[in-house]
Parts: sequence; C-alpha cells; structure tokens
Amino acid sequence: MPLLVMKFGGTSVADLARIRNAAEKVRREVERGYDVIVIVSAMSGKTNELVGWVEATSPMFDAREYDAVVSAGENVTAGLMALTLQEMDVPARSWQGWQVPIQTTSAHSAARFIDIPRAHIDAKFAEGFKVAVVAGFQGVSPEGRITTLGRGGSDTTAVAFAAAFDAERCDIYTDVDGVYTTDPRIVGRARKLDKIAFEEMLELASLGAKVLQTRSVELAMRYKVRLRVLSSFEDTDHNSGTLVCDEDEIMESKVVSGVAYSRDEAKMTLLRVADRPGVAAAIFGPLSDAGVNVDMIIQNISEEGFTDMTFSCPTNQVMRAEKAIAEGSAAGAFVYDKVVVDDAVAKISVVGIGMRSHAGVAATMFKALAAENINIKVITTSEIKISVLIDRKYMELAVQALHDAFGLEKAA
Amino acid sequence: MPLLVMKFGGTSVADLARIRNAAEKVRREVERGYDVIVIVSAMSGKTNELVGWVEATSPMFDAREYDAVVSAGENVTAGLMALTLQEMDVPARSWQGWQVPIQTTSAHSAARFIDIPRAHIDAKFAEGFKVAVVAGFQGVSPEGRITTLGRGGSDTTAVAFAAAFDAERCDIYTDVDGVYTTDPRIVGRARKLDKIAFEEMLELASLGAKVLQTRSVELAMRYKVRLRVLSSFEDTDHNSGTLVCDEDEIMESKVVSGVAYSRDEAKMTLLRVADRPGVAAAIFGPLSDAGVNVDMIIQNISEEGFTDMTFSCPTNQVMRAEKAIAEGSAAGAFVYDKVVVDDAVAKISVVGIGMRSHAGVAATMFKALAAENINIKVITTSEIKISVLIDRKYMELAVQALHDAFGLEKAA
Repeated sequence: MPLLVMKFGGTSVADLARIRNAAEKVRREVERGYDVIVIVSAMSGKTNELVGWVEATSPMFDAREYDAVVSAGENVTAGLMALTLQEMDVPARSWQGWQVPIQTTSAHSAARFIDIPRAHIDAKFAEGFKVAVVAGFQGVSPEGRITTLGRGGSDTTAVAFAAAFDAERCDIYTDVDGVYTTDPRIVGRARKLDKIAFEEMLELASLGAKVLQTRSVELAMRYKVRLRVLSSFEDTDHNSGTLVCDEDEIMESKVVSGVAYSRDEAKMTLLRVADRPGVAAAIFGPLSDAGVNVDMIIQNISEEGFTDMTFSCPTNQVMRAEKAIAEGSAAGAFVYDKVVVDDAVAKISVVGIGMRSHAGVAATMFKALAAENINIKVITTSEIKISVLIDRKYMELAVQALHDAFGLEKAA
Repeated sequence: MPLLVMKFGGTSVADLARIRNAAEKVRREVERGYDVIVIVSAMSGKTNELVGWVEATSPMFDAREYDAVVSAGENVTAGLMALTLQEMDVPARSWQGWQVPIQTTSAHSAARFIDIPRAHIDAKFAEGFKVAVVAGFQGVSPEGRITTLGRGGSDTTAVAFAAAFDAERCDIYTDVDGVYTTDPRIVGRARKLDKIAFEEMLELASLGAKVLQTRSVELAMRYKVRLRVLSSFEDTDHNSGTLVCDEDEIMESKVVSGVAYSRDEAKMTLLRVADRPGVAAAIFGPLSDAGVNVDMIIQNISEEGFTDMTFSCPTNQVMRAEKAIAEGSAAGAFVYDKVVVDDAVAKISVVGIGMRSHAGVAATMFKALAAENINIKVITTSEIKISVLIDRKYMELAVQALHDAFGLEKAA
C-alpha cells in the first residue's frame, strides 16, 4: 500500500472545525488508496499557554519538565484528529512519541532523532487501520523521559516519518499555498513555484522564508523525501502547492529561483585588527559563546600587518556582540582599533541552482542594484546564492528590481 | 526513609498560585524527613475543556482516544508541580502513567490497577530525589494505550500508590477541611470528625458525600491505607482534617457517626409481578444493561403468586428504567401489572459502626422522623447503615432531626 505523510501545523488545527477540515483532506487521500501518517502540531495558542506556565513557574526551568509539559498540546490534537477521522469512518489511531516509540537523544528541547521503529505502526496498518495520527515535535529519550525537538519540530517529525516509512511524499499543510519567487507582500507579481530544489529551499529557509524549517529541509534532502508545501485552507489536489524535490526532478530551471530578504540585520566592522594566524577564531569564538548568530563574514587586508573584519548579525544582538568583543579584547585575545556598527542594513539574496552553470548572475544582480542607485555594502556568495547587505531603506526597491531583472514573474 | 502520599485535587492546583501553595505543603513534609509521592489532578476546568472537545468531535467517541486526550490535563499539572518544587530547591521529578508504569486493565475510562511497580521511582529516591510527582487518574494498558480510571480516579491513584509504597499515610488535600457528621449547609451545628472508620466512610462516600470517591475508600480499606482528608486552603499539620482508618484506631465511637442524604432519588414500583424463581434477575438484569444505577431494592409479597418489586434510582434515569422494563417485559422475561413512579423522594441514611453493637438505632431514627410527621416510604438496612426514602420536601428537616436525635453536634 503506498503511504503518504501529511503534516498540519498549529493554525491548521486551531479549533475543532479546522481539525475537521484537515481530517477531510486526510480522508480524501485514504480514498485515493493511501495509508496515511498524519503529524499534528498543538492547536495554535496552546503551546504558548503551556510555555507561559512553565516560564512563570520557573524562569530557569528544568528542560525535562518543560518538555513533559509542552508536549501535552500535540497529544491533545492527535487524539482529537483520530476521533474526527473515526467519525468519518476512517479507521485511525493516535500515537504519542513514547508509544511509537520515537527515539531521540536526551538533549531536552532540542532533541535529535535516533530511530523511528516501524513495527508498532506497521502492525496497526496490517490490522486495517488506515491512518496513524502522530503527535509532532516530541520523542522519548534513552532514559524514558519525554523530549521535544525545538522550533519547527513538527515539520522535522513529518520528514523523519516519511523517511522511516518510505513515504511516496510528505505533504506539509500550512497557511500559505506554496513557495514564492519572493514575498508577495513586497512584489505583487511574485509567482508561486511549482517545484523547487532541496538546495534552493534550504537557502531560502535559512534566509528566513517561514514556510519550512531549515532542519526539516536538511533532513528531506539527506533522505530524498519529496516534500510538498500547500494550503490547509484551500481545495488542494496532487498538483497543488510547491514540490520540494531533488533537482533531477526539475526539468527546466531558471538560473535564479527566488529573491529572499532579511530586514533586521546589522553590520559590524572591527578596524585595524592586528593580524596573526588564529585571529578570526579569537574574535568569533567569544561571539559564538555569547550566542550571537553571526551570518556573513568578510575579511580585508587594510595595511601591512592589519586587517578589517566585518560581520553581520541580527540587530537585536548588537549589544551582546559589542560586549563579547570588548571582553575578548580585554582578555588579550586580539587587538583592534575600533568597532563601527551599522544597524540599518538589510540582506538581499538571490538563490538558484541554475547559477552553478550560468556565469553572469552576479553581474546581473549588481547592475540591477546600480541602476536603482543602491549601494552594496557587503557581498558574500555560495554555490547557489549571492547575498548583499544594503541600506535598509532600499530593501523593497532592491527586491522588486531583482525580481524584475531575473524575470521571475514568468514561468521557466 | 518514611514515605507519604499527598494528593491534590483540581481546585487545589487550579492555577500557578495554588500549585505553589500545594508545593509549599509538600516541602514542609520533606523538611519533616519524608520522601513524598504527590498525586495531582488536572487544573480545574481543564479536564472539562478536553472532555468538551472530545464530545463535540465524536458523540460516540472511541474510549481509547478519549483517554489519550483527557489524560493530558494531569500531565501538565505534574510537570508544573515538579518545576515548582525544584524552584523551592526540593529535588522533584514528574511521572506520567506510562513512565512508572501504572499498569491497568484495558477497560478504557474505567480501568483498574493491575500493578504499580516501584523500581523506577525507588531508583529516583535512591538518587536523592525527594518527591515523585505522579499524574493521577491514568495508567497504561497491556496494549500500551493510555487508560483513565473514571471519576475520582486521582483519589484512587493516591491510595494505590500508598499501598504499593507502604506509605505511612495518604493525605487527600481538597476544598473542605474534613469529614462532617452531616452537610454543614443543612445543619449549622454539624461537627468535623477527627476520625472515621473505613466502613463508615465507605457508606458515606457511596451515599454521595463528595469528600472521597467510593473506590478509593474501598481500596484503602482493603490495603489498610490510613487516609487523611484535609484542606488545601488552610494551614494544616499532622492533626488536621479527618483521619479515615481502621476501627481499631478509633478508641471511643458514637453509635452513629453521620447523617447522609441524597436529594435526587426516584422510587419505582412494579405492581403484581408474576412471581417465579429468577424473576428479580429477569427485571434487574436489563436495568443494569441499560446503565440504570439501581440503589435500594425491596420486594414484598402482595398476594399468592404475585410480588411487588420496588427500587430506587437517580431521578434522571427514570425514563431509561421505564424503557428497559417495558422492553424486558415485551420480550417475555417477566409479567407485571403496572409501574408506579415517585420521582420526588430523597434518601436519608444514618451511618455508624457503633450500631453493630447497639440495639435501638432504628427505633430512635423512626421515632425522630415520626415526631416531625415525616412519612417513611422505604426502609433498607445494612450492618452499619439505615436508609429511608421520604418525600423530598422534608429532606432538610429530616437531616436536622436525626442529627439532633443522635447528638452528633457533641464529640464522643
């Protein structure tokens, strides 16, 4: 029997009516002949309520007890979804993490999968059950304690089940109808992509596209799980949404697939750093220890024996970064002249697997920005992505200009 | 290390402040040198919310999924209680039913204990944990599904843990400060009992005294678990509340310990039932199958070959009972002339282990009621209880008269 994994996020199961709507989509797949594993999040708001109680009880909470409390939300949805399916005459059974058991590491609130044994759920399918409803976001540690997976954990659960059960596809139902060439709120002509390669989705996810969580895309790429992103709130069929898949499946691809942006970036430059082997590690080690999410890093030689070191990080981490730098320097780890902070920049990226084989993408990008008189402050590139930092006030303009320059409003 | 079981009901853990108040009581017992097992209910209102969702989803719900959903409430409280104790520097760990594991039968929503293995929790006490917080009301079936125990299940969990762990005592914290000679709302001079025998408590519980659930008292009696009922909302010490214990522990006892009542009773009489061996089973079998909770049963011979059969049941089950009788009769199981229903009666009972050795209790009771011109419609007696049905409008008057007649306002 072919098998599908279907995942419904918090807004898709926010109340009983929406659970029923989601169950209807599951029933349709069962009628098409699939066994289905449904992964559910907590009803929206419920996890926040539980987290609020934990934080109010114990600001420095024990992560084991945090996990035991917050996992309750998914358990409730799983039971309600199974009941809803039963009401539709679809034989369904709910599964909490420990019942599968979803074996994870003991890293509470950030656990990783060790194994998802198939035996118990396979046995239920063999008995005639058509749907296994699994509580997302959770597992059980080798010590028998409940674990949770951290942000986006339900997406990751869905992909891991799709890999473990050799699912034909993993459908992620959410509140948008797919992955777009860029944010439709900024570019009205943004186009929904029918397909996108794992690598591109991974870059877009890590650039802040909220559709899929980075780790779930990584996992899908590693296990070649075909992911589909589609809307819970529209009629959908097997061609809806956006398929995230291996690039081999994408026949004709544009050079650039999408334009991403990140608004709240800051650029920090350490001027005249005394250069010696290991100085980068001496600077970025303390930043990492201080929890600063350093994104881009650029190093230039300024004059003999000195270097300028520039990096970007989220705006709200600037103070933390300044403190870490001051302390590192005070401890003698490195020597510099001064720090220059620009906390009014934005990051714009163009992403596309096509640029691996096409020259000139960078030139097109830079020319499009220059035509709008937008100054580029920092450039970094990866195999399938070019990112620049620019003044924040030009962000929307830059996104529109690049969307036009690469002709993204037209299908490939 | 001596061990206590402490149980907190829904109103005692209704919000974070109350959980903290309950945890404070636990901390005090730890300071007195006890290891403590805390049994918690769901925060009040939470179970109703979950039950409401289940019933709205699926009127004829699958009890397995019902149990999976409603058990979430206790799990949340258990985690929050463990966190609260940790904040007070009391080493505590939460336990869900499956983690202990609390092994029960597969009778979902009405499961019974099979075993409560001590190994896991004992190991944690040996590691230095002082408190095990256990989610009440739940367990796990031999099939690995979550079960719940039905009404009052958290009391029963507490008693079962006290038995399994040889607890010195099982303290049931609730919203009243003990067991009274009768309802203080009806008799202002009702007196709190310092001690009451298991048998008496059992009769009072089954008569509707809300303080303890019948099954938990039965279990306590069988395993000689000393139970104490006391208030969550008052300062309490080891002499507070009411101790429910073996009658050997009660030095001096009154003939009658308490007066109980049940307001919403109905009396049904089948007139001229054709008498033959097995006719009672033929009548009451279908009633039981129909879920009618038959309480008192009285049979009189009316004339040769015929009998009148009277029973009582809750008012809201009268229609169900009439239907079951009509169907049973139509199926030829028994023959009768007609049914007479009186749905405006109340049951009044006097309870006391002292009446086993003292004659005249019934005479005193009947005389007290006669002095108030209250007509007795039905009488049943057990070894330590006499119950009567009377017109409902005389209920308060009867309770007061009997409380006076047996001198219950004065200590023994």
